[in-house]
Amino acid sequence: MTAIAILGAGRIGQVHARAVQQVPGATIVAIADAVPAAAQSLADTHGAEVRSIDEIAQSPDVDAVLVCTPTDMHADLIEQFARAAKAIFCEKPIDLDVARAAACVDVVTECNGLLMLGFQRRFDADFVALKQAIDGGRIGKVETVHLTSRDPAPPPLDYIARSGGLFRDMAIHDLDVARWLLEDEIATVQAVGSVLVDPAIGQAGDFDTATILLQTHTGKQCTITCSRRASYGYDQRIEVLGSEGMVTAQNTRESRTEISSAYGSLKAPLVDFFMDRYAGAYRAEIQAFVDAVDSGTAPPTTGEDGVAALMLAEACHQAAHEKRVIVVS
Amino acid sequence: MTAIAILGAGRIGQVHARAVQQVPGATIVAIADAVPAAAQSLADTHGAEVRSIDEIAQSPDVDAVLVCTPTDMHADLIEQFARAAKAIFCEKPIDLDVARAAACVDVVTECNGLLMLGFQRRFDADFVALKQAIDGGRIGKVETVHLTSRDPAPPPLDYIARSGGLFRDMAIHDLDVARWLLEDEIATVQAVGSVLVDPAIGQAGDFDTATILLQTHTGKQCTITCSRRASYGYDQRIEVLGSEGMVTAQNTRESRTEISSAYGSLKAPLVDFFMDRYAGAYRAEIQAFVDAVDSGTAPPTTGEDGVAALMLAEACHQAAHEKRVIVVS
Amino acid sequence: MTAIAILGAGRIGQVHARAVQQVPGATIVAIADAVPAAAQSLADTHGAEVRSIDEIAQSPDVDAVLVCTPTDMHADLIEQFARAAKAIFCEKPIDLDVARAAACVDVVTECNGLLMLGFQRRFDADFVALKQAIDGGRIGKVETVHLTSRDPAPPPLDYIARSGGLFRDMAIHDLDVARWLLEDEIATVQAVGSVLVDPAIGQAGDFDTATILLQTHTGKQCTITCSRRASYGYDQRIEVLGSEGMVTAQNTRESRTEISSAYGSLKAPLVDFFMDRYAGAYRAEIQAFVDAVDSGTAPPTTGEDGVAALMLAEACHQAAHEKRVIVVS
Amino acid sequence: MTAIAILGAGRIGQVHARAVQQVPGATIVAIADAVPAAAQSLADTHGAEVRSIDEIAQSPDVDAVLVCTPTDMHADLIEQFARAAKAIFCEKPIDLDVARAAACVDVVTECNGLLMLGFQRRFDADFVALKQAIDGGRIGKVETVHLTSRDPAPPPLDYIARSGGLFRDMAIHDLDVARWLLEDEIATVQAVGSVLVDPAIGQAGDFDTATILLQTHTGKQCTITCSRRASYGYDQRIEVLGSEGMVTAQNTRESRTEISSAYGSLKAPLVDFFMDRYAGAYRAEIQAFVDAVDSGTAPPTTGEDGVAALMLAEACHQAAHEKRVIVVS
Repeated sequence: MTAIAILGAGRIGQVHARAVQQVPGATIVAIADAVPAAAQSLADTHGAEVRSIDEIAQSPDVDAVLVCTPTDMHADLIEQFARAAKAIFCEKPIDLDVARAAACVDVVTECNGLLMLGFQRRFDADFVALKQAIDGGRIGKVETVHLTSRDPAPPPLDYIARSGGLFRDMAIHDLDVARWLLEDEIATVQAVGSVLVDPAIGQAGDFDTATILLQTHTGKQCTITCSRRASYGYDQRIEVLGSEGMVTAQNTRESRTEISSAYGSLKAPLVDFFMDRYAGAYRAEIQAFVDAVDSGTAPPTTGEDGVAALMLAEACHQAAHEKRVIVVS
Repeated sequence: MTAIAILGAGRIGQVHARAVQQVPGATIVAIADAVPAAAQSLADTHGAEVRSIDEIAQSPDVDAVLVCTPTDMHADLIEQFARAAKAIFCEKPIDLDVARAAACVDVVTECNGLLMLGFQRRFDADFVALKQAIDGGRIGKVETVHLTSRDPAPPPLDYIARSGGLFRDMAIHDLDVARWLLEDEIATVQAVGSVLVDPAIGQAGDFDTATILLQTHTGKQCTITCSRRASYGYDQRIEVLGSEGMVTAQNTRESRTEISSAYGSLKAPLVDFFMDRYAGAYRAEIQAFVDAVDSGTAPPTTGEDGVAALMLAEACHQAAHEKRVIVVS
Repeated sequence: MTAIAILGAGRIGQVHARAVQQVPGATIVAIADAVPAAAQSLADTHGAEVRSIDEIAQSPDVDAVLVCTPTDMHADLIEQFARAAKAIFCEKPIDLDVARAAACVDVVTECNGLLMLGFQRRFDADFVALKQAIDGGRIGKVETVHLTSRDPAPPPLDYIARSGGLFRDMAIHDLDVARWLLEDEIATVQAVGSVLVDPAIGQAGDFDTATILLQTHTGKQCTITCSRRASYGYDQRIEVLGSEGMVTAQNTRESRTEISSAYGSLKAPLVDFFMDRYAGAYRAEIQAFVDAVDSGTAPPTTGEDGVAALMLAEACHQAAHEKRVIVVS
Repeated sequence: MTAIAILGAGRIGQVHARAVQQVPGATIVAIADAVPAAAQSLADTHGAEVRSIDEIAQSPDVDAVLVCTPTDMHADLIEQFARAAKAIFCEKPIDLDVARAAACVDVVTECNGLLMLGFQRRFDADFVALKQAIDGGRIGKVETVHLTSRDPAPPPLDYIARSGGLFRDMAIHDLDVARWLLEDEIATVQAVGSVLVDPAIGQAGDFDTATILLQTHTGKQCTITCSRRASYGYDQRIEVLGSEGMVTAQNTRESRTEISSAYGSLKAPLVDFFMDRYAGAYRAEIQAFVDAVDSGTAPPTTGEDGVAALMLAEACHQAAHEKRVIVVS
């Protein structure tokens, strides 16, 4: 039984707590949060104790922690718990600054620690099925990858202001998926950004609509189209062209019904909340973390993956703001 | 060059004239219609002459006729033109009365004539592709067949009153398709009829909604669901279950666009007019007729097919009105 | 917290145990099974005790039982536990004999008991969404209902021999769904049965392929097509035609991927096991049972529903074997 | 009746001849081709005369010409026939050189001539339906456009060598569609090119796989993904994201059948030949040309459209070969 503590009892902490509950062989031991009532509430729900972060670091009955705090605490907490010899699962990003993130991963390596990054899309059943089709040779050699990533609606403006920008906050997930599917190092990064949804987002120095164009060393190509708004729901699709075929992963809808009228045939709306869309992925991700902790093997998404995706996000940011092609070293 | 005369310049006559024009190796020579202006108009459009029916029967420059008159003239015209040694294409049905239709077919046989029945669905590209999938062994042995046949809206009441009833007028097409796909003689016929669309249809002694259940001698099963109304367009689908798979033919839509909004994703409406839906089938049907005339071979849909479908329609009529299982002899 | 005992630790007992575990507010207290090792194993998995059926009937700490035994014990157990004032959830059918089933339901009524029948399809998320579309007026008045119900492969022959036949064993689920969607009493029942899959099923006196045709008192029509084999997976679809539109519920596939090659575009296979297909439905069903127990309200699927579906199944059996239209009294 | 002469009796000349035949109010009068037998054969098929290009320029019975010769003759022929006061339809591109193309368009303007460019995709029924959805306000304001443009297989190498490169030869169609849908001038052009299909294409100095990224002055974004090979057929799709929804135009398949087996459900293959894919578009395009000639109004695709698309293709070429962002003046 892997004993887990959750650092941060906010929305994402609650998501992960629910995931742990559904993973056989894992149990929640302790919850920490700066807001005592929040910690207590989540602890009560899962029959766990409230403890401080330092107490958890020193708790012999805790095997692993899930870092679900605000981003600016991630790197410090990872280092603290790597030194405390706890296995660590951390939500992306490690830090908004690449150098800080890389230094943090170095500490984990020095401590011989286990760090898994929360790139839950790699655990989505449909995306996994797409990856298996590729790995199984169903489409030959991968040539181009096309990712669609649109949120139903923008987050609050104050969130955007602290987010590091659309590329670091939102596209980082897609950049990780791109790396996973391309299996080749990125050579050039190009990107355009626009403010089409809300001028206030532009005033906050960010874009709300962006497209990324990547090319790898062997010439594979990838597009990522991001928007902070899709009036029709949470739009998350993948298309991969290979030398012998194409594979796509389509969206998740609220149901498999279709209503026909004189206006046409209406498929059910897309699921419009990321927690519903990725509920299964969150479970599978925690399962993979617990499996890695149990078996002492490397987790499927590492700190290095986190740094690599962050570097690409930074290159996108630069490319879009400076309107030039970034050559990745 | 096959020289064709068209008997009847109404809606279906015009459809077939257009089809002839698109068939290489066929030309329209003459048009006959009880209404001189209608005949003249269609003749002008296609560079043909107006002639009387008797003149056409005696025209040495006419190889073949398309019988597009009202149903009650079909049998007499077929006999007249079989005796005049013209190849004959006739819209279904030969006659509303099975005995009369059978006698008419006998005359054609005695004259060693060529008679093709207008079951255009057998020539629809999608239905042909479905049939080829079956014949190509893609689903193994046919076990059950399911036909959906819904018109956008009922015809005028006076048409219904003269139509012979939903089974003889509308389901006869589906019964022919069923025979084509089942390739086995029908053993029992069951049917239910209801008046759900318009009480006036019931007052006219007809049903507007019906379902047919057939079983063949070897146990294959078939359902046909018919409605005089489908608010969402012209619904014409086929599903066939075989021992090793299933094949379906889906509907034709106005375009291949899809619009996504908060309500869902809306595929374009179904084509809602039988002439648009079956435009290609009408062309292919006339092509097949011209090919049969040219090559002197049997047409793909014969007078016997017309009689067989009519007998099944009559059995459905009986089954639904008398609420009993009809054993087909 | 509703305390539940499970009678029968076989496959369906395990399914329901897992469902209980995922329902907040419910807990498994005891397991009974004629095979002690089976009971012990399931009890261990869920932290419950092994008890005899009689012990459970007398256990004050048990609120409700799930009857997951072989069919021939259902009626006796329902009566025993109704008399013991336990809420009862029972897998369909109550009994293969209509009179016995009806008598059993009478006992429950006399005891003022709570009996819910395991018609899990009414709890499937897609079918629920379809029902909501109808109830929300999206297709106007229901006119015809078309159910497809095909298993991937036949059950063992000895199961078939004891099953009561395809109509009582398999179509009973569809007959319940038909009642749920038609919301009108059935007036006539017609059915055909064939042996197309395995002659041994015919030798056992059963059909492996059947089609049912229902008509209600107000003229609504319904087809149910059943097969013991669908080489392409577990095929469970609903189509409902209404006066103002059509709604369908499509199949569940293993993933939302599609692979395009020169052969065409291949959607992922259908889920091919009923437990995977209806996993969510089993959870929702147990949730509904627990809610009924907690609130003391009538369950959504009652003993009367069980008797009504069984009577229709018997009528189908008669209709198919005697080749006649059965008028339901 | 618009009298048309066709210059060039090769493949595309034959396509347009067939299109003219299906347009009421248009007739083919003369055919010219450097190969007399080719000219004669096409003339015979359509009941036209063989004439030389100069004879056609001086024929008072010719209203309009279709320029279907090799690309390097386009500009000279356009000028010759503009001066001869014939309406001109010309296949894209006017010339591989932007300056030459622009000069040619100037001549047409000076002559007050009518020049229509052969961008047939604007006339494809599905793309037109998509455009109408946008123009009808169904998706709000256009934000991003995504075009997929993949040929089934590369053309012969000697064609590629003379083609002006993938951007000028193939992507020019997509660039025109992008302009049509974006309705906003392009500000920046980015592109990547790779050789993934056939090294010989690289040796010929061209790419076989490319992705284009456009941004307009108001911030709209557009991706175009091109490949000389799609093993699964001719892949031509459009997706447009708007402020209030998304509209897509899907591919054309060989039929609307779907075959289900244990491997999944297989939709029919894509049409894999551009002439089949765009047969309807070629007809509609010639219809639009004849309408413009008849009514004396401007054609829907002008010489200016041809120059604009060519300039974008050149910018793409530069962007991909020089790996930099091209700012369009």
